[in-house]
Amino acid sequence: MRSPTVDINMDMGESYGRWKLGDDAGAMPWITSANIACGFHAGDPATMRASARLAIDHGVAIGAHVGFPDLLGFGRRHIDVSADEVRDYATFQIGALQAIVGAEGGSLAHVKPHGALYALCSHSDEHAAALSAAIADVDASLPLMLLSRQVAAAVEAHGIQLVTEAFPDLDYDPEGDIVIEPIKQARDPDLVARRALRIVLERRIDASDGHEIEVDAPTLCLHGDAPNAVATARTVRQALERAGVVVAPLAA
Amino acid sequence: MRSPTVDINMDMGESYGRWKLGDDAGAMPWITSANIACGFHAGDPATMRASARLAIDHGVAIGAHVGFPDLLGFGRRHIDVSADEVRDYATFQIGALQAIVGAEGGSLAHVKPHGALYALCSHSDEHAAALSAAIADVDASLPLMLLSRQVAAAVEAHGIQLVTEAFPDLDYDPEGDIVIEPIKQARDPDLVARRALRIVLERRIDASDGHEIEVDAPTLCLHGDAPNAVATARTVRQALERAGVVVAPLAA
Amino acid sequence: MRSPTVDINMDMGESYGRWKLGDDAGAMPWITSANIACGFHAGDPATMRASARLAIDHGVAIGAHVGFPDLLGFGRRHIDVSADEVRDYATFQIGALQAIVGAEGGSLAHVKPHGALYALCSHSDEHAAALSAAIADVDASLPLMLLSRQVAAAVEAHGIQLVTEAFPDLDYDPEGDIVIEPIKQARDPDLVARRALRIVLERRIDASDGHEIEVDAPTLCLHGDAPNAVATARTVRQALERAGVVVAPLAA
Amino acid sequence: MRSPTVDINMDMGESYGRWKLGDDAGAMPWITSANIACGFHAGDPATMRASARLAIDHGVAIGAHVGFPDLLGFGRRHIDVSADEVRDYATFQIGALQAIVGAEGGSLAHVKPHGALYALCSHSDEHAAALSAAIADVDASLPLMLLSRQVAAAVEAHGIQLVTEAFPDLDYDPEGDIVIEPIKQARDPDLVARRALRIVLERRIDASDGHEIEVDAPTLCLHGDAPNAVATARTVRQALERAGVVVAPLAA
Repeated sequence: MRSPTVDINMDMGESYGRWKLGDDAGAMPWITSANIACGFHAGDPATMRASARLAIDHGVAIGAHVGFPDLLGFGRRHIDVSADEVRDYATFQIGALQAIVGAEGGSLAHVKPHGALYALCSHSDEHAAALSAAIADVDASLPLMLLSRQVAAAVEAHGIQLVTEAFPDLDYDPEGDIVIEPIKQARDPDLVARRALRIVLERRIDASDGHEIEVDAPTLCLHGDAPNAVATARTVRQALERAGVVVAPLAA
Repeated sequence: MRSPTVDINMDMGESYGRWKLGDDAGAMPWITSANIACGFHAGDPATMRASARLAIDHGVAIGAHVGFPDLLGFGRRHIDVSADEVRDYATFQIGALQAIVGAEGGSLAHVKPHGALYALCSHSDEHAAALSAAIADVDASLPLMLLSRQVAAAVEAHGIQLVTEAFPDLDYDPEGDIVIEPIKQARDPDLVARRALRIVLERRIDASDGHEIEVDAPTLCLHGDAPNAVATARTVRQALERAGVVVAPLAA
Repeated sequence: MRSPTVDINMDMGESYGRWKLGDDAGAMPWITSANIACGFHAGDPATMRASARLAIDHGVAIGAHVGFPDLLGFGRRHIDVSADEVRDYATFQIGALQAIVGAEGGSLAHVKPHGALYALCSHSDEHAAALSAAIADVDASLPLMLLSRQVAAAVEAHGIQLVTEAFPDLDYDPEGDIVIEPIKQARDPDLVARRALRIVLERRIDASDGHEIEVDAPTLCLHGDAPNAVATARTVRQALERAGVVVAPLAA
Repeated sequence: MRSPTVDINMDMGESYGRWKLGDDAGAMPWITSANIACGFHAGDPATMRASARLAIDHGVAIGAHVGFPDLLGFGRRHIDVSADEVRDYATFQIGALQAIVGAEGGSLAHVKPHGALYALCSHSDEHAAALSAAIADVDASLPLMLLSRQVAAAVEAHGIQLVTEAFPDLDYDPEGDIVIEPIKQARDPDLVARRALRIVLERRIDASDGHEIEVDAPTLCLHGDAPNAVATARTVRQALERAGVVVAPLAA
């Protein structure tokens, strides 16, 4: 019988110039996929390179974490953009990161939108299609990580694989949407680990009103900008492995 | 006997959002290489795509016009950057444009720095080497356009071909450096065409103090942000072709 | 009997660095209030100063044209900001322009939000109140220009006068909202002048479905980024004055 | 006999959006002047307001910390700007902060350039004069903090008082210039306190080559972005007060 398997993805490369956010070096040993910011909502060329280098050194798969052009709002506020704008912003960001990752000897493994763009593309077929078209233009083999399969038809029409993810360090509202925190707060690592185990082994997560939500998530997202991100990642990874779960990148 | 041959390159894609600069559609028929801005000193994803589309439609070769991160100064003021910063900025910009050009079905043909970064890389071995390393990381077959062969050793050490260019629409100072205008002024198109012919056929240009400078320039640069850029490009192209010069992209 | 009186306001100072938008020098003789961009959606310190200088030289009243922090979108796309963000953005921008206008020997006469922020503050009491609080903190004597009196209570609660304006160069939808064009198109100046006269003398404008809308607008807005902005402003001003309308700043 | 007196100034408000830098709340009790960033090299409207609020609550004098428009480089790399650019950037930034401080019930007490602009204005008469002109246009009673009296004539010609400062947490090179660290490193607080005492009581500091430099500094600058900034500020303040030095804002 095949062992249960899951990927752990985390947002990385979220520093900007003089400003440091997250502990990429501390968290990298515990994750298997790194979503690296591409300069629109966070990240800059030097930060992107440093995060790519770290990921490659740890055998961590790299994804382009594309966002809205809103450094001031960290990409977490909705901007009323057209589908064409989403497509062009995504092509630009994926290309920029691809070149930097290539310069360090690696290659891209997935694409994931960030913050308010993630919310938009998880619910709007039109914008999800635009993002998928951008991925297809660069490399149609890169899967797209999103919250649910709501926009699956729009994504798959462009030949892009949709990978759904679960968020053991966030709350889910009764509709099954995640509750975004403007500034990520610390959660008890053991609680997050228990949720992660339940997601992987039981395919269930509890919503804020107590009812169970079914999840089918080949990858778990942990937030790198939580104050205790490293401790959480380590605790989750160790709990999963103790339970016999194989923690590995998506393509492995 | 082989006909004299020259490339005409022009900066393109210098609009930004609501702001339009240059007449890409008007000039494209008269040039053979387009240096497309990559979002640091000018350009944005939609502008880059539109200019790439136009270039491909006209059979014009596309280069990445990499610049300083200074929209407010249009990349025309020196910023005291390290060689690593030049490398990372260049990799990012080349990658971003490469993806957009690829999405439109084309490919990059060269790299050229813009404005103050052009001046820096034309004189500083260290920064020219960093730029060359960035090109080599993405595609070592892309030649680098610069003012002179002063930094040739640094460039060629990275396996990158250095192509020198001449500027028939700018003045040359007695040292052979071009005199950059913060805002490009109109020049008489016939004067620019005569200078272009002299550069191609006699390999000479006159400095501002009247003495002759030897030039060996496989490509001529015309400024797309001059008020009469289209008329100048047309006049130069027609004068060259009337004189039997083959006007074609570098690689042709 | 007092002559009918109206102010003509136009957005100004919408250039940014190397990019020029609008013809401030050409339009200034024909208007009586200039809404000067403050660097968030357009404008930069040098542009702000030049536009302020021009306005002062022509006896044109100056307003702070505050916008979203979105150069790339020219402030014309909605961003999901909090009321506190609106307040802080407005205080910053009003203060910056006030200092520049003061340096040129003038003073501010009004505040007007731009683009998507204008739409937001015209409809959301909460955001209109935040903008009004910002004005009150700097100078409570500055009136606020908005589309309608929908948010009047929220504005006046902060001691700020609400001045409604009409848009003779835009279409009105059946609900009485203006139809924003992402890129302002040219309109026939004579048509715009006829609409302006109807607004001032009959207090009426025709909606796109043909029905009449009542307007009470002490000021008319003309768009400075229309391709024929100067001709339109001249035509409107001359038509108003021929009809005996006094064209003067609000406070005059 | 009058007690020796000194001001302690620290850079504050250097966060930007999601990114936090420095511990304004922790350091504020130990300093007497806060140089608040104005959005060009760091800071944003909300951060500026929060830092102003903190300073007012602690009776700390507020200065406008004006910088180059270079968020990515944190204002620490030289940009080749004209004197007019310095003037316009400074007027804009001083005005923006002045409005925000005023909204919180306080007022500005000084101006200090940041990073590479500080270096430029400390050595270039032309740029120091431009900065002084900007201050004079807003409020000629605000003193200007700089490294030395080298540009005193240019500053005083605009009616602006030049206040020289000393840097107990930086090294001085043999020429008496401070050695800027791209990322501020922690120094032993006791060492910094000893240097501070020597500056105030003996008017001397030791250069990196061991020779003594005379200093006449009514204010001491401590770096808020040092990892141990709060401990250093507390240690310096307590050491000064134990030695009978009065620590108070400049104007007190």
